[in-house]
Amino acid sequence: MGRVVDRRPVVRIVVDGSGAHASRRPDSLAGEEPLELRVGHVTENASGGRGRAPLAVTMRTPGDDLDLAVGFLFTEGIIRAAEDVVSAQLCAGTDEPNTYNVVDIILAGHVPAPSADAARNFYTTSSCGVCGKASIDAVRVRSTVDIKADPVTVDAAVLAQLPDRLRSAQRAFERTGGLHAAGLFTADGELVCVREDVGRHNAVDKVVGWAVRAGRIPLAAHLLLVSGRASFELVQKAAMAGIPVLAAVSAPSTLAVDLAVESGITLVGFLRGETMNVYARPERVLVAAPLPAASGPDHRASADSAPASQAGAGGRQSSA
Amino acid sequence: MGRVVDRRPVVRIVVDGSGAHASRRPDSLAGEEPLELRVGHVTENASGGRGRAPLAVTMRTPGDDLDLAVGFLFTEGIIRAAEDVVSAQLCAGTDEPNTYNVVDIILAGHVPAPSADAARNFYTTSSCGVCGKASIDAVRVRSTVDIKADPVTVDAAVLAQLPDRLRSAQRAFERTGGLHAAGLFTADGELVCVREDVGRHNAVDKVVGWAVRAGRIPLAAHLLLVSGRASFELVQKAAMAGIPVLAAVSAPSTLAVDLAVESGITLVGFLRGETMNVYARPERVLVAAPLPAASGPDHRASADSAPASQAGAGGRQSSA
Repeated sequence: MGRVVDRRPVVRIVVDGSGAHASRRPDSLAGEEPLELRVGHVTENASGGRGRAPLAVTMRTPGDDLDLAVGFLFTEGIIRAAEDVVSAQLCAGTDEPNTYNVVDIILAGHVPAPSADAARNFYTTSSCGVCGKASIDAVRVRSTVDIKADPVTVDAAVLAQLPDRLRSAQRAFERTGGLHAAGLFTADGELVCVREDVGRHNAVDKVVGWAVRAGRIPLAAHLLLVSGRASFELVQKAAMAGIPVLAAVSAPSTLAVDLAVESGITLVGFLRGETMNVYARPERVLVAAPLPAASGPDHRASADSAPASQAGAGGRQSSA
Repeated sequence: MGRVVDRRPVVRIVVDGSGAHASRRPDSLAGEEPLELRVGHVTENASGGRGRAPLAVTMRTPGDDLDLAVGFLFTEGIIRAAEDVVSAQLCAGTDEPNTYNVVDIILAGHVPAPSADAARNFYTTSSCGVCGKASIDAVRVRSTVDIKADPVTVDAAVLAQLPDRLRSAQRAFERTGGLHAAGLFTADGELVCVREDVGRHNAVDKVVGWAVRAGRIPLAAHLLLVSGRASFELVQKAAMAGIPVLAAVSAPSTLAVDLAVESGITLVGFLRGETMNVYARPERVLVAAPLPAASGPDHRASADSAPASQAGAGGRQSSA
């Protein structure tokens, strides 16, 4: 229990012209365990031990659990900085079993108590309806960073190298084939932090939680690469952390693109070596020749074209 | 809004020896929108219109929303059969906006009111700890089907064909590259139901909800194929629906395997044409030659070897 990678017996089957053939062998699998997050306030209970209320349970790959817990609280808008957390620890020192699956968080007295249903509140801003627009508005209300003004640019050739760099930094994936990863890079492509998890959202929360604990928020001028698809939730987390460039190996969803446009995040999808698609704020990605101006009736196309004052140093300049 | 597939402008970049080149074009993306599920009781409020409490919000691809809502309630253990739902409808007929993103469910009077935190309750069975074992126990408590006794077998050569069949039935994936799918098959490989979503768990809930509404639960002798990885949550949903064979195109997690072993579900991973790994209950998969008996100190290996009485007709027989 509690391992990043663990072994299970497997029957390997190969079907060929002569039929199906089976053999036994052990296999390495990505670990998955529930993590319970308990939150209390220092003012309520300075002596510790009791007074923490369960806030959430997430299924995650064990490891970097304090990063995960702090990152979750941050991307959900419950805390805004490392100072909001008085202590974060695995639930050791009590007589409970499985303490490696419980993280105890003590919040500073000035932090409002989290809602029992933080996730739901993130997607709905009023009682009169629920839609993508409301979800985007909710992120805008909670995020304190103006990503639109981030002048960072990144060379397309640097972006093209990131998937290989992320993969080579994934210690557990090689053994299991079953772990997502999130990697934080500088604009020059230097890897700053990598985290793995069975869930992409957890991998991103682990990276963001690491940054919160290290006092590196907002993550201006940084790139975040995720190993799978780009959903609304992942763009939301990038927006909360102030990350100006989010890249994904696979497809984004419509709402992920819309939130990226609204938040001023450069969203790259299908980043696969030499090819990539840029769905929002493409002016931060440097290519050999300037793009023709966006045209056509789709208002989102013009939303993609930031004014020159936001394009930053070298926007759309040659990378050759 | 509310579309399965929608278009957004994209900048396509290709990096080659002469630098990075960009061009504009439209791209088709998988739709993603929040869906709010509101639940009430017929006895509380026979006149309709009010009295439904929000239970959950999930980000999903629009379409098959009633299947999704009913499937979610079923796999969370809140309802057990179609008769438990008096009505399920998109929230039309009110003066609220965005009614295509709200599903109203009226439960029969005998159905206990759902907890405000059903998901959390699923992973924890007591206040004394949270761990994989407790999560597995919670599924066992809620599931009413004895999958271990399901005598179905499936030819490995039939399993090998399922990924192609699922892909060819995915209408939206071809256009977006961004949708997960869940496909329900007979043991002969006939496709019974396919559903797509940006989230694997939603795609599975849509399939299970379809089966609940069609009165086809438990889904004995059926196979479920999912397009991505096999997490604990997906095995949980298969266990609740009584599905004896779950196959995934990618890797399972440790806890997914452990729950499959405990529940008596045959779990196939890395199903990619001619090769596959069977992580639990391999005796349901027919191959050309019988496997040697499991050995070694790992107790799970022997847990994989069901007694002959459970292997059903033709277990481990030749498929040639």
